[in-house]
Amino acid sequence: MKIDINCDLGESFGAFKVGNDAEVMPDITSANIACGFHAGDPMTIAQTIRLAKKHNVAVGAHPGLPDLVGFGRREMQLTPEEAGSYTLYQVSAIYGFAKAEGLNLQHVKPHGALYNMAAEDETLSRAIVNAIRKLDDKLIVFAPPASALAKIATKARLKVALEFFADRAYNSDGSLVSRRQKGAIIQDPREVVQRAVTLVNEGTVEAVDGTILNLGRIHTICVHGDTPTAVKLTESLKKGLTRARVRVEPVGMFI
Amino acid sequence: MKIDINCDLGESFGAFKVGNDAEVMPDITSANIACGFHAGDPMTIAQTIRLAKKHNVAVGAHPGLPDLVGFGRREMQLTPEEAGSYTLYQVSAIYGFAKAEGLNLQHVKPHGALYNMAAEDETLSRAIVNAIRKLDDKLIVFAPPASALAKIATKARLKVALEFFADRAYNSDGSLVSRRQKGAIIQDPREVVQRAVTLVNEGTVEAVDGTILNLGRIHTICVHGDTPTAVKLTESLKKGLTRARVRVEPVGMFI
Amino acid sequence: MKIDINCDLGESFGAFKVGNDAEVMPDITSANIACGFHAGDPMTIAQTIRLAKKHNVAVGAHPGLPDLVGFGRREMQLTPEEAGSYTLYQVSAIYGFAKAEGLNLQHVKPHGALYNMAAEDETLSRAIVNAIRKLDDKLIVFAPPASALAKIATKARLKVALEFFADRAYNSDGSLVSRRQKGAIIQDPREVVQRAVTLVNEGTVEAVDGTILNLGRIHTICVHGDTPTAVKLTESLKKGLTRARVRVEPVGMFI
Amino acid sequence: MKIDINCDLGESFGAFKVGNDAEVMPDITSANIACGFHAGDPMTIAQTIRLAKKHNVAVGAHPGLPDLVGFGRREMQLTPEEAGSYTLYQVSAIYGFAKAEGLNLQHVKPHGALYNMAAEDETLSRAIVNAIRKLDDKLIVFAPPASALAKIATKARLKVALEFFADRAYNSDGSLVSRRQKGAIIQDPREVVQRAVTLVNEGTVEAVDGTILNLGRIHTICVHGDTPTAVKLTESLKKGLTRARVRVEPVGMFI
Repeated sequence: MKIDINCDLGESFGAFKVGNDAEVMPDITSANIACGFHAGDPMTIAQTIRLAKKHNVAVGAHPGLPDLVGFGRREMQLTPEEAGSYTLYQVSAIYGFAKAEGLNLQHVKPHGALYNMAAEDETLSRAIVNAIRKLDDKLIVFAPPASALAKIATKARLKVALEFFADRAYNSDGSLVSRRQKGAIIQDPREVVQRAVTLVNEGTVEAVDGTILNLGRIHTICVHGDTPTAVKLTESLKKGLTRARVRVEPVGMFI
Repeated sequence: MKIDINCDLGESFGAFKVGNDAEVMPDITSANIACGFHAGDPMTIAQTIRLAKKHNVAVGAHPGLPDLVGFGRREMQLTPEEAGSYTLYQVSAIYGFAKAEGLNLQHVKPHGALYNMAAEDETLSRAIVNAIRKLDDKLIVFAPPASALAKIATKARLKVALEFFADRAYNSDGSLVSRRQKGAIIQDPREVVQRAVTLVNEGTVEAVDGTILNLGRIHTICVHGDTPTAVKLTESLKKGLTRARVRVEPVGMFI
Repeated sequence: MKIDINCDLGESFGAFKVGNDAEVMPDITSANIACGFHAGDPMTIAQTIRLAKKHNVAVGAHPGLPDLVGFGRREMQLTPEEAGSYTLYQVSAIYGFAKAEGLNLQHVKPHGALYNMAAEDETLSRAIVNAIRKLDDKLIVFAPPASALAKIATKARLKVALEFFADRAYNSDGSLVSRRQKGAIIQDPREVVQRAVTLVNEGTVEAVDGTILNLGRIHTICVHGDTPTAVKLTESLKKGLTRARVRVEPVGMFI
Repeated sequence: MKIDINCDLGESFGAFKVGNDAEVMPDITSANIACGFHAGDPMTIAQTIRLAKKHNVAVGAHPGLPDLVGFGRREMQLTPEEAGSYTLYQVSAIYGFAKAEGLNLQHVKPHGALYNMAAEDETLSRAIVNAIRKLDDKLIVFAPPASALAKIATKARLKVALEFFADRAYNSDGSLVSRRQKGAIIQDPREVVQRAVTLVNEGTVEAVDGTILNLGRIHTICVHGDTPTAVKLTESLKKGLTRARVRVEPVGMFI
């Protein structure tokens, strides 16, 4: 079995430093790089891409809503044209930084509220997917299993990497437990590793109410880089998966 | 003789509509498209590029300082790293929109204070030029004759289009008369046309004090799209040059 | 009978000039001044307040969502704390500019999507109203008749000016016809005047489907300053109301 | 002897958390609160003012340049009108939050590049000082000793609190050693305390080259809240000054 580990990185903004990019980078295989709308700025993008290159981590764009103060986590009413052009703008920016470093952009993963909205909304997903495809139809789209985004991207003949959140609790309907609820974020590295190994081997995860969810074939596992235990957790995850004979590599190499 | 006519376009920002893009586009050959820092937004960029495509106008990026409220006209203290990454971010964004429409980006023209600073400062120019070259070494750099920017771009083996401002008065040292001074902007279409024809045929322009300046071979003439008489002026310019047997076409076709 | 005429002004942003502030100001009695979030900037605020002072127009704050590129017209998910602090920030800014010119701020009118959201949502209205009241409990709140905002502001013992949109068509449920629908905006000055006079004298307006809506006592009539016919329309409105023996003056003088 | 200890606080921006506000607050007497231009947002402002109120710390506004990504540390070309209106906007915002909490704003301290520019430039200082005075002529202006800002504020009959940077090295001309140079920031708490005590008792500080600078009567000592050792340092400073029989209280109580 093969799996990718992805993490949102490059989320500092000027003098506002967040995350542990340098510490997390060695243990992941795909970096989702903030594009300047919800987080990130040109200096941070340049540094993050150079860091990814150094560690042979595949780079992706992580476009968000134009809401810096809300970190792209608040839903906004967007027309499909707005969503498409915002996506194209942000992905193009990262695409160019990657090209300037001699790298190919591997993937696109919408951020926060944009990701959640796209997961539910086919019209919005179509706008996002068309923007990506018009830029480069080899780009891989990261999406939740059974989501509108996954369905629309597949229809548009883009490759889709289905994603599992190893450090987030799931509801029995397959959605993530809201960050505002207790227990939404799993911080114990051992539990995260165990969930990831089960997921890879059996395609299942236990929801908060004890239900066993079947997520099917997952291609990439998301870890968060900004929690206090992120570095330890990511390191444990890579080791734990490797020990369980799962090969950890960028999704573009096996999808 | 051949000459290009360029104009700054796509300078609206969301509901803030400025300029006369649709009216000016038919009479120019190169469009400098605002990239979102001093003006422009993703929706406006998409519309402007489609409009340029329709009129066979070559597209370029018009990166500016991160100063929307000041329209990129106020000098800021930037490190070379900041200037380089700001340039790469903005040019990449437009590059992607052009690619998505099946177009090649033709050129890069820094905007406002960034253009003026780069004209004087070799270190800053080097940062800007390196960013452009790393993205795509076929991009043409627009620069004033005898400027630091022209010199550094030439050294870096990028093509340079030397630029003349047909509707701006010149000082005897070759610099532009400040917008704050009376007579800085020439609004009479006949005068603009006459200056352009003389420039193309003889390489000279009369400065405000009567001195005859020799600017040498100029490749592109800039007109401003946001003045009340811009549309009339641009139309007259194209007609006047054509009547004077000057061929007006995108600079990428003859440089 | 007495009535106030209000208009959204100060909606330029730096070099992005919109509206016809200088032309509209002589014919209105209350100015809703953009605060920098959806439009407006400190230079524009200062100029608009000086212009209002010159014409004895009462000044109010016009706080909006933090969405400059969307002009505050797109709904966003906000917590009550966010809505309250965004309101307090923006109203305080205008409050200070008014104080610096020796003026008292008369009123607060939320803008665009924030106004529409508050009209429907009591929790959001409570956050907005509390922010206003904590700053100055003499401030008048502009609100649609029978709205959550009007109800909550009244409960909090703030004065409420009920508002009528003379140049907007109404649905039979009292809501405004969406700007995206045809006929949403009434541009014929005679029709606008006739609607205003009927409204003031009889408290009614004819909805798009012919229904006669009873809006009750209205205190202020909103005209838009950014439409092509805004200046003519506002002038006609003031003259028409005066001719119909309605006294047009700032709402703070009679509420 | 009496002295004030001030610190820049409220410099988080939405989800971008910086500084140690809660830890530093108990040991300072004046808080300079970021106003949203270089840092700070309405939610952060509200929280910071409530925290200051809880600890009986006097609140001041800390207006900066409109350069969030540069944290207000990069000089920009501003007209005096721009500087004045930017100051009035920002100070008014904080003024309103303080008023809403039943507090009087005590002071204004320009931030970063704006502070440095004002220290040198009388025209700029005049614009800033006039904006402050028009809002409230009881506001105290924080300024470096012998600066243009101190001179102009005094002339305008505003109270001026002269400021000493306990954790920054001084050049022999009284200016601060640039942050880009080694040794610019003094991190050893004992050294900081010793410098502060000497300054208060003798009015002098030793510059980097060994020169003894006479700064005269200083009213407020600035500590930085964002360095790793800030909390420890601030605690030591307050204890050290108290032990040396210096009374530490808000400058508004003794100036």
